[in-house]
Formats: sequence, C-alpha cells, structure tokens
Amino acid sequence: MDDFIFGTLASEALRLAHVRKLRGGVTHRAARSPRDPLPGQPIQLELTVGPTQAFDRAWVFWSADGEDPESILGVARHGWATRMDPVGVEWDVLEWGYVRRFRATLPGQPAGTVVRYRLAAGAARGEETHADQGAFYAFYVADDPLPGWARQAVVYEIFVDRFFPGEGKAWLSPETPAGFYGGTLRGVTEKMDYLANLGVDVLWLTPIFPSPSHHGYDARDYFEIEPRLGTKQDLLSLLAAAHQRGLRVLLDFVPNHWSSLHATFQQALADPHSPYVGWFNFSRWPDRYETFFGVPDLPQLNLRHPAARQHLLDAATYWLEFGMDGFRLDYAVGPTPDFWADFRRATRAARPDCWTFGEVVEPSDSQLAFHGLLDGCLDFMLLEAIRQTFAFGRWDATRFISFLDRHEAFFPEDFSRPSFLENHDMNRYLWVAQGDQRRLKIAALCQFTLAGPPVIYYGTEVGLSQKRDVRQGELGLPEESRLPMSWGDEQDVGLLAFYRDLIRLRRLEPALQHGHRRSLYAGVDCLAYTRGELGDEVVTVINLSTVPNTITLDGSWKSVIFATEPGCELQVEPGKVHLDLPPLAGVVVK
Amino acid sequence: MDDFIFGTLASEALRLAHVRKLRGGVTHRAARSPRDPLPGQPIQLELTVGPTQAFDRAWVFWSADGEDPESILGVARHGWATRMDPVGVEWDVLEWGYVRRFRATLPGQPAGTVVRYRLAAGAARGEETHADQGAFYAFYVADDPLPGWARQAVVYEIFVDRFFPGEGKAWLSPETPAGFYGGTLRGVTEKMDYLANLGVDVLWLTPIFPSPSHHGYDARDYFEIEPRLGTKQDLLSLLAAAHQRGLRVLLDFVPNHWSSLHATFQQALADPHSPYVGWFNFSRWPDRYETFFGVPDLPQLNLRHPAARQHLLDAATYWLEFGMDGFRLDYAVGPTPDFWADFRRATRAARPDCWTFGEVVEPSDSQLAFHGLLDGCLDFMLLEAIRQTFAFGRWDATRFISFLDRHEAFFPEDFSRPSFLENHDMNRYLWVAQGDQRRLKIAALCQFTLAGPPVIYYGTEVGLSQKRDVRQGELGLPEESRLPMSWGDEQDVGLLAFYRDLIRLRRLEPALQHGHRRSLYAGVDCLAYTRGELGDEVVTVINLSTVPNTITLDGSWKSVIFATEPGCELQVEPGKVHLDLPPLAGVVVK
Repeated sequence: MDDFIFGTLASEALRLAHVRKLRGGVTHRAARSPRDPLPGQPIQLELTVGPTQAFDRAWVFWSADGEDPESILGVARHGWATRMDPVGVEWDVLEWGYVRRFRATLPGQPAGTVVRYRLAAGAARGEETHADQGAFYAFYVADDPLPGWARQAVVYEIFVDRFFPGEGKAWLSPETPAGFYGGTLRGVTEKMDYLANLGVDVLWLTPIFPSPSHHGYDARDYFEIEPRLGTKQDLLSLLAAAHQRGLRVLLDFVPNHWSSLHATFQQALADPHSPYVGWFNFSRWPDRYETFFGVPDLPQLNLRHPAARQHLLDAATYWLEFGMDGFRLDYAVGPTPDFWADFRRATRAARPDCWTFGEVVEPSDSQLAFHGLLDGCLDFMLLEAIRQTFAFGRWDATRFISFLDRHEAFFPEDFSRPSFLENHDMNRYLWVAQGDQRRLKIAALCQFTLAGPPVIYYGTEVGLSQKRDVRQGELGLPEESRLPMSWGDEQDVGLLAFYRDLIRLRRLEPALQHGHRRSLYAGVDCLAYTRGELGDEVVTVINLSTVPNTITLDGSWKSVIFATEPGCELQVEPGKVHLDLPPLAGVVVK
Repeated sequence: MDDFIFGTLASEALRLAHVRKLRGGVTHRAARSPRDPLPGQPIQLELTVGPTQAFDRAWVFWSADGEDPESILGVARHGWATRMDPVGVEWDVLEWGYVRRFRATLPGQPAGTVVRYRLAAGAARGEETHADQGAFYAFYVADDPLPGWARQAVVYEIFVDRFFPGEGKAWLSPETPAGFYGGTLRGVTEKMDYLANLGVDVLWLTPIFPSPSHHGYDARDYFEIEPRLGTKQDLLSLLAAAHQRGLRVLLDFVPNHWSSLHATFQQALADPHSPYVGWFNFSRWPDRYETFFGVPDLPQLNLRHPAARQHLLDAATYWLEFGMDGFRLDYAVGPTPDFWADFRRATRAARPDCWTFGEVVEPSDSQLAFHGLLDGCLDFMLLEAIRQTFAFGRWDATRFISFLDRHEAFFPEDFSRPSFLENHDMNRYLWVAQGDQRRLKIAALCQFTLAGPPVIYYGTEVGLSQKRDVRQGELGLPEESRLPMSWGDEQDVGLLAFYRDLIRLRRLEPALQHGHRRSLYAGVDCLAYTRGELGDEVVTVINLSTVPNTITLDGSWKSVIFATEPGCELQVEPGKVHLDLPPLAGVVVK
C-alpha cells in the first residue's frame, strides 16, 4: 500500500524537474532573513540566477505603503529599486553550469508595515526577468508572537457533514460516499460535552459556507452559512457552547478558489464587462480561466485584484468579529505572499490573538516560506515520518529520531506546526496500519509528546476507519476517509479512554507542551526522548518491534505515568532503569 | 557531432547519481576555507550528512606530523579528534529529507606543515561513517604563490612520438594510428628554433618514460627514458636548447597508475609475499586489482603505501633536479589529496618555482578542490564553453560572456587555469569546426585574451586536423587527434603567421597576461570585453555571426591592433567607435 501525500512532488521525476527549475531559473522563493522581521530589523534577501540566465545584475523592487512596487527596465516607478550585490558563484552539476547568488538588504520598517517586493535579474541593456515567474512577495512587520493558547492547543477536526446530524436525527443514506450524510452545526453543539470530555480545546470545522458539495471547499458565498448545516444562529450557539467550556473554534477558509456557482463568477461569465471578470484569471473569456487543479467548477481567484482581495479580507475579518478564533487555511500555496501579508495584517487587527495555520502539502522549505505570513503550517513532513515509522514500519527508530532532530532544528521555535496522523484527504491511519491499534497508539503517543499542537481527525479516537483504499488520482475516493462518525455502541470505548488519558497526560505535564525535546536513545526498533528541563524531564520510550524489548535508561526515573499497552514494567536499579515493553508499545516515564 | 569530454558525468543520469550520492551521504569533498592556507591561518572544514545517515555528531581526525590520523569510534589514536558543531539543516528535495551541516575549525599551522585529515559522522553509540567513502584529505601550509613565469606562459603541448623524427629521418609507417611514428626528443631539440620563433615559452612533453605504447601514459620506469624517444643525454640537450632560448619544459607525469610491465607489478604478480604487492590495490591476488578505467594493463598504484608514495615523490624530485621546470599531472583525481599535499611539499622543496597543474576532467567544483595541492588545473570548463560557442555555435554571446564572468568569479585569482582548445584525448578543434579556420581564429583570439596561460596543442598552429571522428567509448580512436605534425609544405603558413602574431600580441600587451577582465558587451552574436586598468585597457571584440556586424563601443578607442580577418574597420566618432566586422571575425582594439 502506497501512502500518497505529496502529489506535486510524488515522484523522482517531479522532484528533479522542480529542483532544476529552481536552480536553472531566477529564483528567490522567500529566501529572506529574518523571514518574520521585528519592527526596525533590516531584512536580507537572496536571489540565485541559473546558468543559462545570462544576467549580471539584479534588483529588489519594493514598497512599504501597501501598494505594489512597479518597475520598468531596472528602474522603480512606484516604491524603491535596491540593487543587489553579487555575492558568490556555485557550480551546479545538474544544471551543468554556474549559479550566481545576489544579496540585498532592505532597511527595517515600523510596526504594522506590509513590505511588498519583487526581484528581477537583468543585463546591462535593460532586459529583465522577474524572479519565480513574476511572483509578488511580501512580509508583515510586527512584534506579534504566536498566541499562548495556540501552543497548548489540542485540536479536533470536524468534517461537519459527517460528524453528527443532531439528536433524534438519523444519518442520511446518500447513493455514493460523496453525497450528504446530514451532519449539522447543531449536531456539533450537541456533542460539545463529548468533545470537552475528550479533552480537546480547539475545534476546526471544515467549511460551513453555502456550497454544492458535501465538503464545502467550493463555497458560493463567504458571508453565509450552508443551510443544510444550519444558520448563523446555530453557529453562534456552537461558539457559545464551545467558549463556555473553554474550547476555541477555527474556521476552514479557502482563499484560493471558490465555486463556479458563486455570484461573482456567474456574473463574470454572463458579461465580459462585469467588474467581476477581473476577480478571476481568464486567459480567454468566457471559457478559459485558471482553476484549482484543472477543475472547471473551481475557478481560481485573482487575489491581486484589489476588490477581490478586499472581499476575502473582509470575509476573514467578518468571521473573526463573529466570534471565530482563527483559521485553518486551505491550499495556502495558492494565494501569493502579498495576499498573506495583507491577510495577516487584517486578521491580527481584527483579533490580535487569533491563530492561523496553512495547509501546505509541500516539503519543509516551502512551508518555512510562510513564516511571518501565517502562524505556521500543518506538519505534513512529520505526518509522513510518523506514518512511515509507526504505521508502515519502513523507517527504523534511528531514522525517525534523526528526522525529528533535524526537523526541529530546521523550523524556528515560533513557527506553529500542528501535528496530525491523518486528515480528510488521505487514507486513515488505522486503515494503513491494517487495523492494528497498537500502531495507532504508539503513533499518537509520539504525536502527543512532541511540541506541535496535536490535531485529532474526528473518529480517530473511537476507531473509525474506512472500507477501501484511497488511491492517488482517483477523484471521489477521498470520501473513503470521511465516513460518518461512530456514535454509541459503534465507538471503541477502550480507544476512546486511551485518547482521553493521552490528552489529559499532555495537559498535566506542561513539559509536553513547552519543554525542550532531547533525543535520548535510538536503536533499530526502540527510541526514547525527553521533554522538559534537565532534572524535571518526562521521557517517552517506544518499542517499534513486533517482539518484546527491554530498554535500559540511565538516570533516576521513578515511574511509568502512561502506557499504551498493559504489561509495561519498570525495574529500578541505582542510576538506571530497565523498561520491559511489549511489542509495539510505548510509555511515558518520569 | 557530439563533443564528449566529461565521460564520468556525460549524461543527466550520471550527474543525478553523482549529486544524490553527495547529498545523501557523509560528504566533505574538500569543503575547506581557506583551501590553501597561509602559515598560522585557521582552517574551517564543513561536512554534510544526508537524510538517511542518522548521525547526530561528527569529528575531524587530523595530524600535523605527516602521518595519517587514526581513530576508532570517535576517539583519536594518532593525531587529534576535533568535534564538529552542527550549524544548520537544509531540506533536500531530491533526497526528500534533511541534510545536516557540521563545521569545525582547525588551528593555524607553521609553514611547511602537511595537515592530513579525515572526517566522520556517527551516533552516540559509537558507530561512525567516514566522509566520502573514507577519503584521506590534506593540505600543505605555505606562503608559496604561483611562480610569475607560469602566469605569463604560452605553452606548447608536444606529443613526442608525433612531433618530429629528427633531421633526415622520415616518419615511420605504422599499420594503425596507434603505432609508432618515430618522433624523438632530438627531433624536438632540432625544432627548438621553430618553437621559439612561434613565440611559445613553455613546452609540455607527453610522457617520455619507457613504455610499450606510443603515448607513454603507461610507463615501465619513472627514472629512465624510452629508448625510441632518446636518452637522458638527449633530454639534457633538449633542456639546454630550450633554456638557452628562454623556454621552460614541463614533464607529463602519471602518478595514478603505470604499466603492468613495470618491474614492481611483475614482481607483485610473481610472488604474493613481494613487498610490491602492497604497492597496488589487490582485492584478490593475483588476478583482481584496481586499474585505470578497468584496463588490466594499467594497474592503479596504492599511493597510501609509504614506499610506493616515496617512489613517486622521488621520481618527481629526480626530474626537477634533472632540469625540468614543472609537471602536467595526468588524471589528478586518481591519487588522494594527502598524496598531492606530499607531492607539493616535495616538488616545492626541490624547485621552489616549479609549476604543477593537473588534468582533472571534472567540473569546476572538483577542480577547485585542488587549490592548495597543485598550482591549478587545465581549464576543461572553458574548453567546453569555447567549443560550444566558437566551434559549434550552440551558445550565444550572452551565454558565453555570462559563463566567463561566473567562471572567473568562481576561481581564486591565484589558481592557475591553463586554457586550451583541444588536446590528445578529443577531436581537434578544427575538425569539430568543420575546417572553418575563421572559427579557430576567433576561438584562439578569445583564448589568448583571457587570463589563463594558453596551451597550443602541436599542429593547431599549422592547420593539422584529423581524418575521422573520435567517438566516445571507442578505444583506439583518440589517435585520430594525434596524427604526425605537419612540416614544410604541409604547413598552413597563413595560420602559422596568425598564431605568431597572436602570441606576440599577448607578449606585447601585459594587460592580456595580468589585467583584470571586464565584460563590455554581449549581444546574441557579438561580444566585447576589456583587459587591464581603466584608461589603459585593450578590448577584444568578436562577431560570432555568419553575417557582417557593426558594433558600437563607447569610449575613445584609437586603433585595431589585431584582427583575425581582413576587412575589420574602425570608425571613430566623438566618445565612441563603430567596428565593422566580417562574419566570424574578431579584433583587439586599443
């Protein structure tokens, strides 16, 4: 069973083409230091120019007034043109030629500034090529650290149509898994005690706007609620019920595209002179326009159009003022960085402690480019590492621990990386683990003892799985991982108790939320790491093997405070302990 | 017609495998700063560790007493172990994982020291992997700049068997081009006036040691002369004739391998207990041993064996003391860097002003690794650029100029890069230029107006070409580019006069030897660059087009001091000049 996640970089050929495009072209890709500048802090930008790009000079065109910088032939027409310095030359074996590196430093800016910029390389005679196919970059200057509640969060992803139809209502029986099952906002509200008892403190609702689909990632209106799911009053009730119990609620927001049924697109189709034509990227009106992955029903928004951009920013502001606590941002690589800088400014203004994180199904370097634009990104690389190690058994413990060490060294501490084992676009974890709950429990133990705020996808905690494989390229099949939530007797109460205990463990041990992580041991089939300060650490120990294992740890560890399986024993000797672990079991020791 | 040069990196697949091996492994590849340290200067070393190399620590094991550093499980047994610091993590898309970077600084060392080192990465439990498949590195600490005569040199490569048999002797008539044509050392001596009149001041003799082949790159004895070519007395006469006329002489030296007929190898084959067995790399005595590119007749030397190494160093010293002025070093990537550090110390001790440059048929990054071990490397990248641009017309002028700018920025100024248009291992330039002398002349003009000391391969100056193609992978065919030298009526006297003038131009304009180069202009089919200081520059202008071109240059240029073709005209206007150039023509303007 293959685990497809990174579609655009799924094969060696795609990765090679990606690297060659970057190294061969005029490339910036947010190579900026710092990426998230404080007020007054100068910002260094880097650019590389590939072997066949015969350019010997480069510029940053930038503005600090919220408008696009404009330039022609190396001269700024709006904003400033800062000449970049050549700082080095590298030989590139794949491109078989020299890559030239340029650097420039922009002056520090006051708090609240959005700096927009583009980079270009050119030759003496004036010809110029913009970096990254003309991308507009931006950053928002502020001293606005990640809100504290986001660091401590345990998130629960609710696929609204599939969570709960409401007391006394049965699930609908759609003809295909892509139909409507009848989940509602009121259903979520009615399950608030279930969620509070589980121990999660942040709900992420998949899109709730009017939409023709069961998933809602194709909205018709960003200011209304899909009637199937309920009303604004229902959402207010949901928020009240949540906030009353100390839970916060995140909205799933899709700025890249919306439904072709959206009034703006319908008007754009109907009238070539409509002001809405500019909201989309028509290459030939009315039948050629940019879409999300080639789906005609999902026209891509032209967020560089001021009115379209403002519409999106207004919607985001509206829902924060409505009472939502933040956003999970769908397909965040779609909109350009300058949109995200504006988005950050607007959302922080509306709600200084909101939490925003992106869905960026790309490797770590692409995710880090969102530092300073969003609070962070869903941790897809950790997802892959956890599934490879704990579900598939393809990575041994040394590889996983080495990955963790480097992964944490790669990202700045203030970049939020919500962790997850599965979501609504891939095979469920329990499915790829062939139903082996032990593999789920050690993965969850690992997830909950790392720093990233853990996300539970609805149903994971009660053993919800699927009936057949989600396969790459087959549309419709993701629904396999979106089956209706199990309630009542269908729930695996043992697993539910495990999840409750695991969440409580994280709550009771602040070191698991905030503590520094340190790898303690990695063998072929066992691993151990600590969280917290020396002398006050908790240790996670996992046996990846399908046979029992004894692990000896130096130190004065006193007791097992959590175990995924019965039969985990700790034997104390002076200065060390022996841990007897059953197959595929893990413990937390203190 | 394909121009094969870089055999081991000739295809995309080979290059990709090369990059993946480097990025995926434990890799140093002489990433050292400075590469050629002065006495007392600290040296920084870098190491990268690929994603599946789950190592979290790294060390440099090093010595400064000329002996190998030795280590076991992260602890030095001879020399020192310096722990490397983790300094960063990079995401690698091709390897789909994190590459960890380590750094360490070694203390400065006194002049004359050879520092030898190895690097290793390991995990806490002691396992360690040496960088670059266990490579031994080294550098020689000295303040020994490139000798001045090497900067001014114009070199002439003499393939001895093919140059001149001597007065009154006819060429032999071998059955195949791989046979003996009868050139001799005495023949070279007799042509010393020809060479002096041509204007070259350095001769590079292909190997002259006893050897079964016409080329001599498979010697039987490094202390004798091949009788076919002459005697030591003949060589002394040659040296005297050369030195008397101000010419220096370089020997072609092959430390990587020698003939299987060499007495040491014969003894090693005859007796498993022979001390010479250790001089070679037998994996199974007597029939499996490492060779040069799989040729059983060319056993590779084990230069890590002290006696074998000393034998080679003694040979090099012997010939310098005999009167030779330096070495062209064949297949310099074969011996390890620690051999080259010893070689540098030995040769500099024997002859402080000797010139040593390597044949490294690898791209620039590999060539630069020889900085501090040799004075430089034959400029294979420039060769490729010149042939692509001037012979094949595949690169336009902007690409070539951009290459030049970056190529010169890549290499330190004191790294000697002898330039050439062809050599004895590839199709002759005139052959790939389909006999078009105009293409040869503009290439030579470019070669002679760049900083690298130009090398002329015997016969180029009189129109010597070949009869059929040298094709990759076909053994024996390189001989096509080694046809006997043209003498008398066979010589193209027009081309010869051109070469004499070109060499004289370089002599008369010191800016062409030492001056800073600056690109002045690059269009699709024209290019111009200056050499020398502002106000005292000479300008090279070349029309790559097959139609006439007029190029306008700003500045007060007075006259054309060299032209490759008749009909190059300069028209002066206030503050600028117009240059009318025939097709495929170039000029030097002052």
